[in-house]
Amino acid sequence: MSVVNAIVATSPTAPLERGTVTRRDPGPRDVAIEIAWAGVCHSDIHTARDEWGQMEYPLAVGHEITGVVTAVGSEVTRHSVGDRVGVGCMVGSCRECANCKAGHEQYCEKGFVATYGAVDEDGTITQGGYATDVVVAEDFVLAIPDALPLDKAAPLLCAGITTYSPLSHWKVGPGVRVAVVGMGGLGHLAVKLAHAMGAEVTVLSQSLRKKDDGLAFGADHFYATSDPETFTTLARSFDVILNTVSAPLAIDDYLGLLDLNGTFVSVGAPPEPAQVTLFTLFTNRRRFAGSSIGGIAETAEMLEFCAENDVVPEIEVISADQINEAWERVVRGDVRYRYVIDIDSLRD
Amino acid sequence: MSVVNAIVATSPTAPLERGTVTRRDPGPRDVAIEIAWAGVCHSDIHTARDEWGQMEYPLAVGHEITGVVTAVGSEVTRHSVGDRVGVGCMVGSCRECANCKAGHEQYCEKGFVATYGAVDEDGTITQGGYATDVVVAEDFVLAIPDALPLDKAAPLLCAGITTYSPLSHWKVGPGVRVAVVGMGGLGHLAVKLAHAMGAEVTVLSQSLRKKDDGLAFGADHFYATSDPETFTTLARSFDVILNTVSAPLAIDDYLGLLDLNGTFVSVGAPPEPAQVTLFTLFTNRRRFAGSSIGGIAETAEMLEFCAENDVVPEIEVISADQINEAWERVVRGDVRYRYVIDIDSLRD
Repeated sequence: MSVVNAIVATSPTAPLERGTVTRRDPGPRDVAIEIAWAGVCHSDIHTARDEWGQMEYPLAVGHEITGVVTAVGSEVTRHSVGDRVGVGCMVGSCRECANCKAGHEQYCEKGFVATYGAVDEDGTITQGGYATDVVVAEDFVLAIPDALPLDKAAPLLCAGITTYSPLSHWKVGPGVRVAVVGMGGLGHLAVKLAHAMGAEVTVLSQSLRKKDDGLAFGADHFYATSDPETFTTLARSFDVILNTVSAPLAIDDYLGLLDLNGTFVSVGAPPEPAQVTLFTLFTNRRRFAGSSIGGIAETAEMLEFCAENDVVPEIEVISADQINEAWERVVRGDVRYRYVIDIDSLRD
Repeated sequence: MSVVNAIVATSPTAPLERGTVTRRDPGPRDVAIEIAWAGVCHSDIHTARDEWGQMEYPLAVGHEITGVVTAVGSEVTRHSVGDRVGVGCMVGSCRECANCKAGHEQYCEKGFVATYGAVDEDGTITQGGYATDVVVAEDFVLAIPDALPLDKAAPLLCAGITTYSPLSHWKVGPGVRVAVVGMGGLGHLAVKLAHAMGAEVTVLSQSLRKKDDGLAFGADHFYATSDPETFTTLARSFDVILNTVSAPLAIDDYLGLLDLNGTFVSVGAPPEPAQVTLFTLFTNRRRFAGSSIGGIAETAEMLEFCAENDVVPEIEVISADQINEAWERVVRGDVRYRYVIDIDSLRD
C-alpha cells in the first residue's frame, strides 16, 4: 500500500484541499500509473458535494485520467511500463453478466465500479484521479494513441466517450441530421465528433455567445434556445438530438424537433423526472432515450477515431491550487471548454 | 349527396341516438361502401365525449369499418363493385410530404384526415363508420383478404394495425422478449400478433383475471402489475414492451423491466405527461417511444399477416341499440375483447 498526494474533499461543503489517498500494491492483473493529467468533469463536483448519494470523506474525485505506466502485475498482458495510458469512469465490473461479456461494462448488471466514491472489489472506496498515482485493473486501462497528447486525451476518457457512444450507437454519419444541446465540456466534443463522423451538425445553445466557436468546431448551424422561434424554425428537422445539458429541459419542445423515427438521447441527468407528452412521442414515432458513458472496447475505438480525425477537446490547464476557482467556474458554465489539472503541480 | 342512417352523438354528454349523416357523391377517385360491421374503439368514446378537443355535433364515430363496395369513381383502379373492403382511422392525407411518400400517411406532416371529426379535403367534417354507408378516397380503402371474415376483420383496422405497426417496426420475432401491457381490445390482439411473429410473449395485466385467456391467445407468461413483486421478478427481462393502456402508468417501473437497448413503446395516450427519470433511461440505454396506428401499405401487410396466421380478434357482436350499454362497458374495461356493431341493425 502506498500513500500518494491528492486533492481531496473533506466534506460536502468544504473547499477542496491538498491531502493524500492510499493506493493498493499492484496485484497480478493491476497496472500502476503515474498520473500526468486529470480532467475536471461536472460529475466530480456533484459527487464531492454529495448531490448524488451518500459519500465517505476524504474523497479524491477525477475520472479523466492520463499518465504513464510505472509497474505492472505478473499476469498483465495489455500494458507495459512506460506506456501512455488513460483511465475513465470505470475501474471494474463483474465481467460475467451478459452486458459485460458483450463489452458493455457501463451497463454491467451488478453495476460497474466507478473510478471514485464506489465500493471496489476489495471493499475499499475508490479514489479518483486528482492524485499523483493510481492502481487499476488492466482491463480498465486504455492505451492512448501516439497522435493524442496526454493532456488533451484526458477529457476524452469521460466527455469524449459519453458523447461518442450515443453518436456511434445511433449511427450518426453522412446524411444524418444531428443537433447537440449545450456546448460545454461534453457538447463541444459532441460537435467535433459528429462533424468528424460526417453528419450535418446543429448546435442548440442557450444563447449565440459561443456561435463562432461552434462553427469553428465543425457545426453547420447554431441556434439559441432562448429564442422561441428556434423551436418553430427547426420543427421536424433532426434524426438525432444529443442532449448534454444536466439542467431540466422542456423535453416536449425538443421532441418536436425530431423527424420520423428520430431519437432524443440524453447524457445529461437532472435529478427531477422529465415530463413527456405521449402525443408528442406519437408524432413521427419519436424516441426519448438515455446513454451512459461507453464500454472499454468502445472507448479504445473512440480514442483511435479521435487520433485519426484529429478530434481533441479545447482545454485550459490549471495547477492543483486553482481547483476551487475552476470548480466555481464549471458550476457557472464559465469554461471553454474543459479544465485539465497538471498533476505535476501535486508532486511539490 | 346522400343521407344515410347512423348512430350519432348530439353533444358531449347525451347518450348516442339513431340519426343520419350525409355522404358526398363518389368523386372520380372515391369508393362507396355499404358498411357491414363497425368496431367499437375507446377513441370513439373519447372523441364523442369531446375529451380530446373541440367537436362539432351531431357526430358519427367509428374507424374500424368493413363492408362491400357499391360504387366506384371513374378513375378508381384498386377496388371494384362487390369487393370486400375496410377503412381504418384515416381517410386522407397530403400525399406529398416525405412521410406520405414513404407510405407513412399516419405521420403526414400536415396531419392525416381522421375518419371522423376531422376537416376533410372538401372542408366538411368527416363522419365515421357507425353508419350504413361511407364514401372514401380509394387510397384509404383496404382490401380484406378472403380468409378474414368481415366482422372479425373490422377491429384489425385500428386495434390490429396500431399494435402490429410497433411490433413490426421494433422487429419483434423469434428470440425477442416482448411484454404487452394491458389485455383489452388492443392488448389481446398484440398478444396474438406477437405470438404469431414468433416472439416470447408476456402479458402484464392489472390482475390475473384474464390469465387463462392470455395463455390461450399465445402468451408464454402472465403477470399481475398489482403485485409489486412482478417488477422485481421481471427486472431487465424484455427487449420490447408495448403499452396498450391509456391510463397514466408509473413509467419508470416499466422502464426498469427493459434489458439492454430495450424499448418501451406506448400506443396508449393519457393526456397527462409521463414522468421519466433519466437515470432509469441511462441504465441499459433504454428508450421510451410512441407509435401511432400504421400506414396504408403496412395495414394491407398486417391484414395479409392476420389472414395467413389466423390472427383475429375476439369479438362480441351488438346491434345499434346496444351501443350506449356497450360504451359503458368499454369505459369500465368490461369487454372480452372488442365490440363490433352489426350495421344491418341500422338499416331497419
